[in-house]
Amino acid sequence: MTRYQRLAELLAQRIEQGLYQPGERLPSVRLLSGEHGVSISTVQQAYHLLEEKQLITPQPRSGYFVTPRKAAPPVPPLTRPVQRPVEITQWDAVMDLLNARLDDDMLQLGSGMPNIDAVTLKPLWKIISRLGQQQDPRLFSYDNLYGVPELREQIARLMIDSGCQVTADEVVITTGCHEALSVSIRAICQPGDIIAVESPAFHGTMQTLRGFGIRAIEIPTDSVTGISLEALELAFEQWPINAVVVVPNCNNPMGFVMPLQRKQALLALAQRFDAAIIEDDVYGELAFDYPRPVTIKSMDLDGRVLLCSSFSKTLAPGLRVGWVVPGRYFDRVLHMKYISTGSTVTQTQMAVAAFIRQGHYQPHLRRMRSYYQRNLETFTRQVRHHFPCGICVTRPQGGFVIWVELPEPFDALRLNQELRASHIQIAVGSLFSASGKYRNCLRLSYAQSFTEKTERALEVLGAAVERAMICCAPVSAVHQEEGEGRVREREEN
Amino acid sequence: MTRYQRLAELLAQRIEQGLYQPGERLPSVRLLSGEHGVSISTVQQAYHLLEEKQLITPQPRSGYFVTPRKAAPPVPPLTRPVQRPVEITQWDAVMDLLNARLDDDMLQLGSGMPNIDAVTLKPLWKIISRLGQQQDPRLFSYDNLYGVPELREQIARLMIDSGCQVTADEVVITTGCHEALSVSIRAICQPGDIIAVESPAFHGTMQTLRGFGIRAIEIPTDSVTGISLEALELAFEQWPINAVVVVPNCNNPMGFVMPLQRKQALLALAQRFDAAIIEDDVYGELAFDYPRPVTIKSMDLDGRVLLCSSFSKTLAPGLRVGWVVPGRYFDRVLHMKYISTGSTVTQTQMAVAAFIRQGHYQPHLRRMRSYYQRNLETFTRQVRHHFPCGICVTRPQGGFVIWVELPEPFDALRLNQELRASHIQIAVGSLFSASGKYRNCLRLSYAQSFTEKTERALEVLGAAVERAMICCAPVSAVHQEEGEGRVREREEN
Ligand SMILES: Cc1ncc(COP(=O)(O)O)c(C=O)c1O
Ligand SMILES: Cc1ncc(COP(=O)(O)O)c(C=O)c1O
Repeated sequence: MTRYQRLAELLAQRIEQGLYQPGERLPSVRLLSGEHGVSISTVQQAYHLLEEKQLITPQPRSGYFVTPRKAAPPVPPLTRPVQRPVEITQWDAVMDLLNARLDDDMLQLGSGMPNIDAVTLKPLWKIISRLGQQQDPRLFSYDNLYGVPELREQIARLMIDSGCQVTADEVVITTGCHEALSVSIRAICQPGDIIAVESPAFHGTMQTLRGFGIRAIEIPTDSVTGISLEALELAFEQWPINAVVVVPNCNNPMGFVMPLQRKQALLALAQRFDAAIIEDDVYGELAFDYPRPVTIKSMDLDGRVLLCSSFSKTLAPGLRVGWVVPGRYFDRVLHMKYISTGSTVTQTQMAVAAFIRQGHYQPHLRRMRSYYQRNLETFTRQVRHHFPCGICVTRPQGGFVIWVELPEPFDALRLNQELRASHIQIAVGSLFSASGKYRNCLRLSYAQSFTEKTERALEVLGAAVERAMICCAPVSAVHQEEGEGRVREREEN
Repeated sequence: MTRYQRLAELLAQRIEQGLYQPGERLPSVRLLSGEHGVSISTVQQAYHLLEEKQLITPQPRSGYFVTPRKAAPPVPPLTRPVQRPVEITQWDAVMDLLNARLDDDMLQLGSGMPNIDAVTLKPLWKIISRLGQQQDPRLFSYDNLYGVPELREQIARLMIDSGCQVTADEVVITTGCHEALSVSIRAICQPGDIIAVESPAFHGTMQTLRGFGIRAIEIPTDSVTGISLEALELAFEQWPINAVVVVPNCNNPMGFVMPLQRKQALLALAQRFDAAIIEDDVYGELAFDYPRPVTIKSMDLDGRVLLCSSFSKTLAPGLRVGWVVPGRYFDRVLHMKYISTGSTVTQTQMAVAAFIRQGHYQPHLRRMRSYYQRNLETFTRQVRHHFPCGICVTRPQGGFVIWVELPEPFDALRLNQELRASHIQIAVGSLFSASGKYRNCLRLSYAQSFTEKTERALEVLGAAVERAMICCAPVSAVHQEEGEGRVREREEN
């Protein structure tokens, strides 16, 4: 970043944080130049940049003013999925999303790919290179079924931060969180069984249920507090539910962190109905608040929680290093792990273990957390700027995706097809529902650095949304009322 | 190897090949010294070594004679498994085998681990190290679901040698052959289905069936020609069999290469009964004969063969790079691959692709083939030497394991427990049966270089077998007749 870009970023932040209020006059160029010890022309360039971004507006002969702000869009209301077990569809939509990876020119706003450009990740390259030089025969040998011992130890140590007291012996390494979820689900369910999921929920989990012939019951979920325990209880009373799959920390796609009491209540509910909880913590370390939120696993006394995670979001997904702490289901998970991949790649496990042991992990996490948080600010500011009124947008508490709800009958699938010509890809909402709900929603990633290309993409996207909304029926009053200005505080976590 | 050891090895080979016949007098020390340009004492040392190995016997004042040879043990007769679908057990025995990996002091004669010490594998270390230096962001990114394109192309090219004309687009990369088998089985079967397998068969496949609630019908299998087509046909007539899983090339554990006509007949049978064939070719490149045997996949016209393989036996299992060519089941396999691990580790895929592209693969294969063939000679010679009469031993046509059949009621499980004190581990036969048959059999690996430790282990093993056999009931006459001196020619392949 050049000097004037840095200054512009700082001023944008002040505007964002309300230090300069909408309509207020900004300091004169001369004043700012003195305050920041930069040249007049630097300040002028910074102001021009902010003007381009429509954050500030010049008024002839009286200087710059903060552009009167559109109200922050409300967060989405509680979702309303169908209240019975359904077969899962949407595989074609998932394939569509995955195949976008094949196109290098595509701006992948829909991707679950983290940012891998940070300097704090560089030591990992050196470690990989050194592993090649050291010629440790373990790299070429079958690893044991549980995973590389050093890595399991490091993971047990990391998990202390999430409130978990586990030993290395309770951890099984997997090929990404995908395999952790897959072996967990298969360890506790038979085809025909019913699993309760958040709605919306990660498409990978849903497709796993589909592959194993398991039905999903989608539970209404709040974009601030998570899965509705009231609805879940009702579902438990009505259906023989074996397990609940949740992403309580930095949820994908809604970004919430479930409040502590709700986590406790969820566990109590699972105990009451003797169901297992599959807790997907893949984004847990990327919560903006420090210390990181605790896991449900940390409160688990009878081993009914299977904690699934990976280094895919915190380090790099190409490594495919994940893990599961399966509690009382350890033996069955181990069998499923054996039949799924035999053992896990040795080399990437050893690389991650060395990265953590050498002390690189925590600094990297700290950097990524604040990086994503800053990106989120820029991104939502831009979304607010380019998108029309009448939408709902989540306020993620970690991770790197936001969820945008547009008025029905907006069709994100059609939008996605339209955008292909402009080489922009989004994740359509229907991916996140067993039965293709949420066609009026989309998930956007703010993981990659915000460039002009991103800005142009949001502009194109916003314009397309606006065009589509004009064709749409007017937003229903109920929806408006429910969504608008809804201010809710998170419970203490 | 010192000079005298090399000479001893050469002489042992000549004896093995029948150049010096049992009972024949060996050349004088002086003559050999002249012939090989080595000192008299070198020849004497070589002769002493051969004497220790009981290959030759000194006779006072008339020199050395080839020790009258025990007859080569016969190959095992056709197996006789139960002729109905059964649930699979034996998980504890598999865990036992796998957990031996945790003990570094254990001489793992039961392992499926290839030899990874060859100099021809060295370039792979350099490639790994360079991948770390080059910092190609693809290593850290989600690979596409199909696998790294370069690798898929190299695999399609390699498969030409097995008679297959496939394009890169038909190949899906997997986490080892394990995942290839697992996704194939799940793509074509539902719980409760029946799959026909060779008997004995690879325990990994069998445990996969178990994990998915599929029953196995074990088909009698011949140690020279493979699965009995007559028995298979009968089974097809009696049971709704969805698929057959076979390892027709360098079978694990029996080492046979199924003759060409039998492969054709098996395919025809599968067509007639509309069943899929899962062909596990993981050892196919390690056949001693060159060119390598063809796959059933190469004859497949209607896409019913799912070819599964990996670089685990030819390069290194720790890489976990495998693949499946699923024919008409491509889409279902892809879905199963997605839910099983998402995508495969990028780095090891790129390393293998570079290793092949740079021309290192074929020289390595050539070296390993002849290395294993030489090891097999030494190993079977030693088995013959240390084991008592009355056993059957396979004559592998590739790969690196032999299968030893002892008279019933010999108990390999007990033997294995006994051997633990001596830090020797074998693979007990019951691993290779759905229902725990073949307790009187064991699988031994000759993958690692034959050292004094190996020789001592075979001595201990042989002695234990001999002790156990004395306690056993005498070998039944029928079995003797069937097994002894059975000479069968392989059909043209
Ligand atoms: C909630 C959630 N769980 C699991 C995964 C899969 O993680 P991995 O790449 O480690 O398999 C993802 C990635 O998209 C995810 O968003
Ligand atoms: C016949 C057979 N198939 C498959 C495998 C598994 O191969 P991979 O290590 O590539 O998963 C083995 C390894 O033991 C094997 O013997």
